[in-house]
Amino acid sequence: MLEVYAFATPNSVKVTIALEELALPYTLHGVNVRKGEQKAPQFLALNPNGKVPVLTETDETGQTFVLTESAAILVFLAEKTGRLLPAHGEARAKVVEQLFFHASGLSPAFGQSGFFQRFAAKPEPIALERFATEASRTLRVLDAVLAKNKFAAGDEFTIADIAHFGWLWRRSFPNLTLEDTPHVARWYADMERRAAVQRGIARIEALVTQD
Amino acid sequence: MLEVYAFATPNSVKVTIALEELALPYTLHGVNVRKGEQKAPQFLALNPNGKVPVLTETDETGQTFVLTESAAILVFLAEKTGRLLPAHGEARAKVVEQLFFHASGLSPAFGQSGFFQRFAAKPEPIALERFATEASRTLRVLDAVLAKNKFAAGDEFTIADIAHFGWLWRRSFPNLTLEDTPHVARWYADMERRAAVQRGIARIEALVTQD
Repeated sequence: MLEVYAFATPNSVKVTIALEELALPYTLHGVNVRKGEQKAPQFLALNPNGKVPVLTETDETGQTFVLTESAAILVFLAEKTGRLLPAHGEARAKVVEQLFFHASGLSPAFGQSGFFQRFAAKPEPIALERFATEASRTLRVLDAVLAKNKFAAGDEFTIADIAHFGWLWRRSFPNLTLEDTPHVARWYADMERRAAVQRGIARIEALVTQD
Repeated sequence: MLEVYAFATPNSVKVTIALEELALPYTLHGVNVRKGEQKAPQFLALNPNGKVPVLTETDETGQTFVLTESAAILVFLAEKTGRLLPAHGEARAKVVEQLFFHASGLSPAFGQSGFFQRFAAKPEPIALERFATEASRTLRVLDAVLAKNKFAAGDEFTIADIAHFGWLWRRSFPNLTLEDTPHVARWYADMERRAAVQRGIARIEALVTQD
């Protein structure tokens, strides 16, 4: 049995989209990060890093396996089902490359740029400029990738697309648009049309209104 | 034939250490990031993201495969050799989890904290505090992992240890020590004693004096 602890966040939506794409049944638990529930002792017992999403899998003997880090969860689900991640070779390596480009590059740039624009108690010009520049730059790097390929890691839809979609879905946080990145815009529209993507978003957004 | 484009950086050293641990022959090319060579057109043709390290593999037909992102290179090398990454199950997922915790958490926190302490034209208190706090916090999260396990992802040495080692090796950049994280200190000393780790560091450091 799969259970997901998540909220309406860029990293959480990746997991519900993957589960919907893979048609795996799961139970979704809301962790309201706006109220700081991800730093509460009972959640820290699940993920000492204090972040959503978390996936748990309980086997027939009652043993529970806990996995954190959205991209690690995507890899786990893809390998469990043998889908959305090529089994070997260069095609596989290109998916993994995009997962890490997202995790170490685009994602922190988008997140920090949004923080310094919206949440910092005072404007700090060096930080504002640094992260806005890096967020735009990584978006243009992705645009160049999508100028050559239909999807983020080649001609096939993979978990790399799901990873990038998380932060592109929340591009208003760092105040970005897709106006100057037409290939990302084309890809984003393709992604948004997928029924499983729509279901993954709907399940995550329902956590906010439920709460 | 494997070729590596790198410099004496936290992400580059991961690749030479992995190649030494796996006893794979390689040619190492210096890309002097202090002189901005990673932003030069000829390097951008190799990696449009403008970052070291890059791995290339040329096959017998002369075709060259280019791979970026240090952690993606670690996964590629581990899967190529069938070593340093369990083939399946929870043990494998735990290695991947640590790779992403490093790439999305510890690594950007260490990097940004060092930047705002050392390179920002003016001190910006919110940014300084934010990244110093996050760098210390992620280091303590790693300490709790290493309190339970001999290595970052369990009882065995894996590519997760190599990934974490890169930034721990450069902990003076964000002005951190291992005084308050005894389990990281014990693990770091174990890592430093490995002959392949020493060779990987020596090859990377030689790029600076050569240049």
